[in-house]
Amino acid sequence: MVDTILSSKTKEVVIGAGRPFVIIGERINPTGRKLLAAEMAAGNYERVRSDAITQVEAGAHMLDVNAGIPLADEPAILAEAIQLVQSVVDVPISIDSSIVEALERGLAAVQGKPLLNSITGEDERLERLLPLVKKYGCAFIGISNDETGISEDPDVRFAVAKKIVERAMDHGIPKADVLIDPLVMPIGAMASAGRSVFRILNRCRDELGVNTCCGASNVSFGLPNRPALNGVFLAMAISNGLTSAITNPIEHEIKQAIQAADVFMGHDENCLTWIQANRPPAAPGDPAAASAEARRERRERRPRRE
Amino acid sequence: MVDTILSSKTKEVVIGAGRPFVIIGERINPTGRKLLAAEMAAGNYERVRSDAITQVEAGAHMLDVNAGIPLADEPAILAEAIQLVQSVVDVPISIDSSIVEALERGLAAVQGKPLLNSITGEDERLERLLPLVKKYGCAFIGISNDETGISEDPDVRFAVAKKIVERAMDHGIPKADVLIDPLVMPIGAMASAGRSVFRILNRCRDELGVNTCCGASNVSFGLPNRPALNGVFLAMAISNGLTSAITNPIEHEIKQAIQAADVFMGHDENCLTWIQANRPPAAPGDPAAASAEARRERRERRPRRE
Repeated sequence: MVDTILSSKTKEVVIGAGRPFVIIGERINPTGRKLLAAEMAAGNYERVRSDAITQVEAGAHMLDVNAGIPLADEPAILAEAIQLVQSVVDVPISIDSSIVEALERGLAAVQGKPLLNSITGEDERLERLLPLVKKYGCAFIGISNDETGISEDPDVRFAVAKKIVERAMDHGIPKADVLIDPLVMPIGAMASAGRSVFRILNRCRDELGVNTCCGASNVSFGLPNRPALNGVFLAMAISNGLTSAITNPIEHEIKQAIQAADVFMGHDENCLTWIQANRPPAAPGDPAAASAEARRERRERRPRRE
Repeated sequence: MVDTILSSKTKEVVIGAGRPFVIIGERINPTGRKLLAAEMAAGNYERVRSDAITQVEAGAHMLDVNAGIPLADEPAILAEAIQLVQSVVDVPISIDSSIVEALERGLAAVQGKPLLNSITGEDERLERLLPLVKKYGCAFIGISNDETGISEDPDVRFAVAKKIVERAMDHGIPKADVLIDPLVMPIGAMASAGRSVFRILNRCRDELGVNTCCGASNVSFGLPNRPALNGVFLAMAISNGLTSAITNPIEHEIKQAIQAADVFMGHDENCLTWIQANRPPAAPGDPAAASAEARRERRERRPRRE
């Protein structure tokens, strides 16, 4: 298995089968968010700024940035949103667009080594975008559909994934810089959607040895209690080889399921992250509570510097 | 893959890879429950009764019954507890003891086709207990350890599992009546415990084609927020082939994770069980709420028959 290295201006994030799962925050995306779309189209990035900060505080290791607003100047808005995000948080960026010009503008605006999201297995897209990946030395998400659409057969989708990896290598792009997206369909519409994804992930891990990434929220479309479903789905996918996802760490159930999955994959050393996140609140009068209280007071008494 | 059929006096439960996950309620077990142990030893089965009813109401498809109380007459207590459980709920029983005489008394007391829990891979245990399984035509849980103890190497544990299945077949017991327990160790003590279990489950499914069962609660021993960990662990194990578990359906997070796992394995037809369990409460004044209210009133006005 390979390690995929992404970076921001000063920080590196590594995606790999022997490491904690990598969360790519999904929120900076105007699809289905009317208010955010209107604001971004009007050049107001206040919500982008707060979404960036909140997601990183909640545990996002990277942020996906999408500016897909109908009739707007997507390339310009995407570049501006990326610049804004980089000015408030120091995490690698996933540049998310289906428009080549927007991806190009995003690549020009970004600092460090980003993730290009995404390239399908269509020949025309591969030949147009792989040279761009090579030129900028970035990593990319390869989506397992092609000219014939999205197959229901996981082995057909795996064949597309394999073609993408091979084509990338033909262009001199190392396997480590390809993340395969198995394509997550709504389970409410297709009962085999989960098992298909697990099978593709297994084959990507065992036969291709590449990292994987998926947009996880789609799986629960139309069903109640989506955060609980998304969390369990991610944990199941992780145990089948998924190494990163574009998801929402602000949702407690998603974050908790990923942390538990890290524990069971042996990627949370001494379970310290889990213990820290789930420590029962100290009872009043207990020495631990008293010393926490003392620490808080000392902090509050300290003169502010800013 | 085979189907394992268990039964109570009138009901059948089928464990299989193409079916919803089977929950075996773990609560009727005096280990670590001082009050229950004292009551059972004194011939008081009130808590056994309520634990049986509560677990079945919470979704247990079967019940594990254990009477392992130090210095008590375990065979007699186990037989009495099984009879009591059968008098209040109609689900198949898992007869749980490490004492041969207790298993024998349990088999004599039980109605239908039970699960014998458990037989290790030790030659002496296999030769002593497999004839009993054959005689009573029950199914059994084969535990993947032998004279040499519990190996940390999943492939050694798998070899023990394979030996158990082969030995059972030598005794004329069909593969369908063997459930392999991969042995779940505490993840806090052994970081590889999760991955080992996933690998053994994969091999049991792909190479032996047998059903599997585990005691899931052990995995979170010593860690905070155990129900959340147990739920996520079960979902991950299910996606790697686990088809049943001895666990606690009364814990909301465990029950919910299993229901979500059934959705993603494609075993919750049209997601109806999930939708039913997670339907948002109807708002007051909403027509659905009004009609639910009307139905409730009609039901309450109906004369009682019992």
